[in-house]
Amino acid sequence: MAASTEKIREVVESYIALVATGTAVEIADLYAEDATVEDPVGTEVRRGRESILEFYRGLEGMEARTSLGVVRIAGGEAVFHFELVTTVGEQSYTVAPIDHMVFDEDGRITAMRAFWDPTTDMSVS
Amino acid sequence: MAASTEKIREVVESYIALVATGTAVEIADLYAEDATVEDPVGTEVRRGRESILEFYRGLEGMEARTSLGVVRIAGGEAVFHFELVTTVGEQSYTVAPIDHMVFDEDGRITAMRAFWDPTTDMSVS
Repeated sequence: MAASTEKIREVVESYIALVATGTAVEIADLYAEDATVEDPVGTEVRRGRESILEFYRGLEGMEARTSLGVVRIAGGEAVFHFELVTTVGEQSYTVAPIDHMVFDEDGRITAMRAFWDPTTDMSVS
Repeated sequence: MAASTEKIREVVESYIALVATGTAVEIADLYAEDATVEDPVGTEVRRGRESILEFYRGLEGMEARTSLGVVRIAGGEAVFHFELVTTVGEQSYTVAPIDHMVFDEDGRITAMRAFWDPTTDMSVS
């Protein structure tokens, strides 16, 4: 049985909050074992906790904020638009993907794919 | 080789325009042979031109307008938010999905999945 829409929405909101202020471990805890991450879509697919931890460690300790846009949930899957703004010194980097997530019956993420293009969906200010 | 970002964007824009004012044949022409359509996600997957034509015939002759929101294109795939407003008599029905499309190297759609929930992402006014 698919996770409920409410549970999935909760996980998406936790994810967006943790990407801004959480640790890599906290984010990885939202994922199922052997989950996959493809970010951005078209690049190598990461699989499993170690690889996912490594991916999110890049965000740890950065000054970051996130905001969630349109979210759609159907059939135990979610797609959602969000913005991640990281600040390094006086520069702000904004990435604005649409993510696709698949969930297991307990609401853990089994697959995440982030749709964005570094040449058009990222800006510096 | 994946279709170019420009080609994919063009097909997405054609799709959104044709959903409002095109015929089922014109829309089906954007699809590859043996393409699949899952709309909304979680319902039965349609496969092939006849089934896709049948799906879009439901829109033919309706008074409809569409608007395209955020579009993200990566790795030969696209996700995009849009609104479809159909008017029947004095009632307007708004559906606001996020669609995911996969394209072949010629830019034809090989798979479309529409993420929306009839209980939350559709409104009547």
